[in-house]
Amino acid sequence: MDFELSDEQRLLVDSAQAFARKELAPHAADWDRDHHFPLDVIRRAAEQGFLGLYIDEDNGGLGLSRLSSALIFEQLATGCVATTAFISIHNMAAWMLASFADQALKDRWLPGLISGELLASYCLTEPDAGSDAANLRTRARLDGDSYVLDGSKCFISGAGATEVLIVMARTGAEGAKGISCFLVPADTDGITYGRNELKMGWCAQPTRTITFANVRIPAGNRIGPEGQGFVYAMKGLDGGRINIASCSLGAAQAALEQSLGYVEQRKQFGQQLSDFQSVQFKLADMLTDLTASRQMVRMAAAKLDTRHSEASLYCAMAKRFATDHCFTLCNEALQIHGGYGYLNDYPLERWVRDSRVHQILEGSNEIMRLIIARRLLQQDGMLDRLL
Amino acid sequence: MDFELSDEQRLLVDSAQAFARKELAPHAADWDRDHHFPLDVIRRAAEQGFLGLYIDEDNGGLGLSRLSSALIFEQLATGCVATTAFISIHNMAAWMLASFADQALKDRWLPGLISGELLASYCLTEPDAGSDAANLRTRARLDGDSYVLDGSKCFISGAGATEVLIVMARTGAEGAKGISCFLVPADTDGITYGRNELKMGWCAQPTRTITFANVRIPAGNRIGPEGQGFVYAMKGLDGGRINIASCSLGAAQAALEQSLGYVEQRKQFGQQLSDFQSVQFKLADMLTDLTASRQMVRMAAAKLDTRHSEASLYCAMAKRFATDHCFTLCNEALQIHGGYGYLNDYPLERWVRDSRVHQILEGSNEIMRLIIARRLLQQDGMLDRLL
Amino acid sequence: MDFELSDEQRLLVDSAQAFARKELAPHAADWDRDHHFPLDVIRRAAEQGFLGLYIDEDNGGLGLSRLSSALIFEQLATGCVATTAFISIHNMAAWMLASFADQALKDRWLPGLISGELLASYCLTEPDAGSDAANLRTRARLDGDSYVLDGSKCFISGAGATEVLIVMARTGAEGAKGISCFLVPADTDGITYGRNELKMGWCAQPTRTITFANVRIPAGNRIGPEGQGFVYAMKGLDGGRINIASCSLGAAQAALEQSLGYVEQRKQFGQQLSDFQSVQFKLADMLTDLTASRQMVRMAAAKLDTRHSEASLYCAMAKRFATDHCFTLCNEALQIHGGYGYLNDYPLERWVRDSRVHQILEGSNEIMRLIIARRLLQQDGMLDRLL
Amino acid sequence: MDFELSDEQRLLVDSAQAFARKELAPHAADWDRDHHFPLDVIRRAAEQGFLGLYIDEDNGGLGLSRLSSALIFEQLATGCVATTAFISIHNMAAWMLASFADQALKDRWLPGLISGELLASYCLTEPDAGSDAANLRTRARLDGDSYVLDGSKCFISGAGATEVLIVMARTGAEGAKGISCFLVPADTDGITYGRNELKMGWCAQPTRTITFANVRIPAGNRIGPEGQGFVYAMKGLDGGRINIASCSLGAAQAALEQSLGYVEQRKQFGQQLSDFQSVQFKLADMLTDLTASRQMVRMAAAKLDTRHSEASLYCAMAKRFATDHCFTLCNEALQIHGGYGYLNDYPLERWVRDSRVHQILEGSNEIMRLIIARRLLQQDGMLDRLL
Repeated sequence: MDFELSDEQRLLVDSAQAFARKELAPHAADWDRDHHFPLDVIRRAAEQGFLGLYIDEDNGGLGLSRLSSALIFEQLATGCVATTAFISIHNMAAWMLASFADQALKDRWLPGLISGELLASYCLTEPDAGSDAANLRTRARLDGDSYVLDGSKCFISGAGATEVLIVMARTGAEGAKGISCFLVPADTDGITYGRNELKMGWCAQPTRTITFANVRIPAGNRIGPEGQGFVYAMKGLDGGRINIASCSLGAAQAALEQSLGYVEQRKQFGQQLSDFQSVQFKLADMLTDLTASRQMVRMAAAKLDTRHSEASLYCAMAKRFATDHCFTLCNEALQIHGGYGYLNDYPLERWVRDSRVHQILEGSNEIMRLIIARRLLQQDGMLDRLL
Repeated sequence: MDFELSDEQRLLVDSAQAFARKELAPHAADWDRDHHFPLDVIRRAAEQGFLGLYIDEDNGGLGLSRLSSALIFEQLATGCVATTAFISIHNMAAWMLASFADQALKDRWLPGLISGELLASYCLTEPDAGSDAANLRTRARLDGDSYVLDGSKCFISGAGATEVLIVMARTGAEGAKGISCFLVPADTDGITYGRNELKMGWCAQPTRTITFANVRIPAGNRIGPEGQGFVYAMKGLDGGRINIASCSLGAAQAALEQSLGYVEQRKQFGQQLSDFQSVQFKLADMLTDLTASRQMVRMAAAKLDTRHSEASLYCAMAKRFATDHCFTLCNEALQIHGGYGYLNDYPLERWVRDSRVHQILEGSNEIMRLIIARRLLQQDGMLDRLL
Repeated sequence: MDFELSDEQRLLVDSAQAFARKELAPHAADWDRDHHFPLDVIRRAAEQGFLGLYIDEDNGGLGLSRLSSALIFEQLATGCVATTAFISIHNMAAWMLASFADQALKDRWLPGLISGELLASYCLTEPDAGSDAANLRTRARLDGDSYVLDGSKCFISGAGATEVLIVMARTGAEGAKGISCFLVPADTDGITYGRNELKMGWCAQPTRTITFANVRIPAGNRIGPEGQGFVYAMKGLDGGRINIASCSLGAAQAALEQSLGYVEQRKQFGQQLSDFQSVQFKLADMLTDLTASRQMVRMAAAKLDTRHSEASLYCAMAKRFATDHCFTLCNEALQIHGGYGYLNDYPLERWVRDSRVHQILEGSNEIMRLIIARRLLQQDGMLDRLL
Repeated sequence: MDFELSDEQRLLVDSAQAFARKELAPHAADWDRDHHFPLDVIRRAAEQGFLGLYIDEDNGGLGLSRLSSALIFEQLATGCVATTAFISIHNMAAWMLASFADQALKDRWLPGLISGELLASYCLTEPDAGSDAANLRTRARLDGDSYVLDGSKCFISGAGATEVLIVMARTGAEGAKGISCFLVPADTDGITYGRNELKMGWCAQPTRTITFANVRIPAGNRIGPEGQGFVYAMKGLDGGRINIASCSLGAAQAALEQSLGYVEQRKQFGQQLSDFQSVQFKLADMLTDLTASRQMVRMAAAKLDTRHSEASLYCAMAKRFATDHCFTLCNEALQIHGGYGYLNDYPLERWVRDSRVHQILEGSNEIMRLIIARRLLQQDGMLDRLL
């Protein structure tokens, strides 16, 4: 076992941190308040390779491991959670294309997605399915050399501002095996976008419902064979859980750092806040929980990298654990700041609002518990193998 | 012991609930989004007597007990937490005037405050004092038959929209005994208002910093003798804690009701959410914690009504307990709603944001713990008297 | 509403407290260590009327309300949790006889049960049924003017030392309606007692499995009509939950008092423990949670006294809330005592062990949640009625 | 980073697991009940090298890393927590001798300690010092070529059954720098042992107070130079925290496995316990918390192995986190077993009792929080270095 970052990983962390400090942190409050989606900055992130982190180099990506990618997302999120979360979704969408599409489709779209010329939205969730993705109802009907899509998707990050939609739609029978995956140009006829949802947080990225009415795309825009969509979605989710959990780590790291600064400077009853034992104990638990969360995420990412047989289990545990603890940490940090923590002038309440959705997204934390329990109850001696 | 509401209290609850459903709930989302302070509706509340709930009838109020007043705030808050919280602060300010001012000052200002023609802000907190009110620095210097005020106050609810300021200022030496209480007309020369603070919640009421520069008011605007300000502030806080905790109860009650409706209607994996045992357990704990919180608040209010020797202790415990549990309850209710809970279209995230500040206000919950512990450690056999 | 004890209740509290301090507390550690069931002291409790607290006066009891009885159990438990818990079970068994048996059966047995000459065990739980009492399998077959019982019961408090068994057995079909209630003399032929179970706590009362093999009792020993057993059991449980929760309150009260004394006297790093803010915060939360627990129990008892339509719901909530919080409180108190808390020389670890089973007994706290949730989900506007 | 055990570590885990299953688990309940200290089995553990795990090979130990040693303690503790905890303390004591004593002293005592012929107790804690070790009062006065010890130690594991005492005593001025470390033969004149303390758990190992009255030992029995004792104690504690946390991991692992078996077999309301979603969620959280705890312990051990500059911080975090979560896990496992969990026949309640003291020992978890907070508040950019 080895718990140290490699030198290369240190460098990645440093560069992501530098980007976060220069390009994200100074503007995050404004983007949040103005509901501004910083397309220019996201494209600047592309210059660093941040839009194709774990796409292999042959396909034009950085070819990083999931672990190294997670380190980068963590650092970026210290600057702006919402923007980083979108970048991570874009990464997942682009990776899906790179991993499962045929060469022609990749040639047409992948370079733009990696260069930032094109951005992608990932369209899985539907209004009536929520966490129950296998029951999605959007249909894609083969008609000559086209597919025709009908249905609707909701909670789509970036929708309305992105050029590419990666869409899961039903081409076959009920259930998981009837689902296929498509690349749909965002401006295709028949696509309508709902209004930009007003949300508790993640305000720096638009979220819209997308309706597909008789949307015709070339048959060649199918990613992989028919019926493979759900498999891709599940593989995507493993990584997506790592990514979103990494965004929580970044928020928590930033909230702890901000708190440390605050308690040294703020006085109450003639004493520095940092002299109060109750504050000290809170900070100690914050650091401990952050450290544990980070280990869980990194271990899960490493399991994904080594294709460990229980990688999905580790991803579910990491996502549940890290997003719960980091939200609580941000919320405690807000409390430490008292009334100031409640003001937009300070970043605390934004971190609380932004990280809150991570407990819901990519499979809610209740779904994570189901996944973990189901695996655990197979009773095949797995516990020993987890040692 | 008797744990039942009286018939009169039932009627009060019903009328407050009706007001909340008709006048508050339908607009609360808009007010939150638009940062709109609903002065007209607050004045309509005055018609029901809601602006002078526990001012005695001789002074023009409803003469209700603190307990009955708390029941009303609880119900109003089911409609709009932020508006109700302001109404409760106004009540405290008006009550302070009614209880401690001389007849002339009351005659001049109280009728307007009770009728809703005038609204009041309560000005205690200062930028550098936070929960440490005894160290406030705003000064009031007697100059002939005027006082001249200099200093600044922050986190002032309603500031900029109210006509009356109840201000704590130092007329004497350092410490609690040097503080006096004043009624300051809000448009007096020398008062400047900061911008409307952008906050996590309580968006339906403005919050501003107020700066007093050479602000001259008649000496007769002093409320009570010099040096009594801190005493009044402390008495005000006992009630203020009950009131704000009642606002948390209302949010929690509304969040639980909303959740019950949702889980009956929403399906996942082909089952109603209400059929999932994890959801059932959560709802059960929500009801239990709400019930316990409510009892703590009502008991504290009753202790205040009967001038129980430990009333302040009970108020501190009730405030700590109810605001913590009710925030958690609202946050759990959000989680039950999944992605929808995160949208402004649903009231869940607003209840989370609005109730969050109750853990900070009126003495943070950390201050409550100090108050409770200090009393407990006096070791005078108090525990037996609490039975 | 009225949150004060009456003068009579104060007197009851005082006398129970005096009994606890004189007769129970000095010996509780020895009884625990030696697994000694203090029959003599229990009989001395009978002299105070403590074995027939809420049996009406016509039947020879004290005729107290459930609320007053709960106050007494709470105080007794400060002296010895395990002994008090047995006394509370005996009370329930005797009350069942007093409430539902015919006059002849009462005349024969009730005086002895109230005077302490006879003690009773309550036999509901079976090895394979646990919390699922409606499915019990012990059968009682009518044979001439006798019933013949076969089956077994487990976790029976007092078994082997008591003279009377109140037994739930099946006289009819499957399900709740086939169950009847019987008084079985403990020395009837065919009854065998298992060994005294070694348990984590409650060591001052024996717990045994009881096996009935062809046990013949007079038909007149049936309590109430056939088929009513389950109804009685459920009624008994409401009260039983109040009683056991009261025992938790007593343990918690004692643990808090003990802790207050300890932190004043113990020094660490040159400071009194009571000067550490982390200790202060813990104590504050302990008092708050104890106070809330106590209110929940008293409110539930009062609802039972007034035959409130939701009394069972309140009992379930009170039992869940109080037994959980009071266990945690005892455990925190142990922690405050450091290594000393872990020693039998101090009562902390005994309170932890004794109160632990209250989360399991009388319907586990998971069952409580099911009961609460089921009621809540009936969606008949109940929430408003709980105000 | 690498989160996989090496092949060698897998083998160590297997052999420790085998020893636990064969030699410890079958007898742990008896040892607990009978307060039996299994000296023979501990000596059998020596045959596997388990009494000198991280003593280097030159000195006769296995020369394992702290991480590998922790893996072994974890597995042993699945069999018997109390016995393993003693073995871990013996390891620490022997390691202190091996690391800091001169050759003559080592030659005289170390072989016996590693072979199990001799067992060691570690004597640091004193009645009035608790976690405040720097203020210990036991004195060692140089008198010719002897030291003479006076004072007393408490909570000494193994005392009365061990042959060797490693004793911290004051040879110089107040404070940490006046403390030296000694090897004291347990049967030296002037040593008296208190009674075997009755404790909540850890019943399979004796705990006694030791009093030193004019105890004369050769000057050569001093370990290292005068004044170094506190330094050694602190180094020992880092490892001791890892070890005790590993014992908690073992208890938790065993409790989770036991629970998995139980919920598959036990039925309630006609359903397997494993079919209840509330049970599933609990199991999922148990596995997640166990996994996080394990990572924290392993990472801390690895930091110790690589002499990471923040190793002490990691040890404190790991100890706090793992002992808290694992206790809670054992307690939840007890609850899953209902009434059976409360019986000595099942191991659940023993695991709860045994693991409880780990939150107190080796520096209470409150002390851990102080250590963590103190480091965190040095504000030297450490947070970045923890990435």
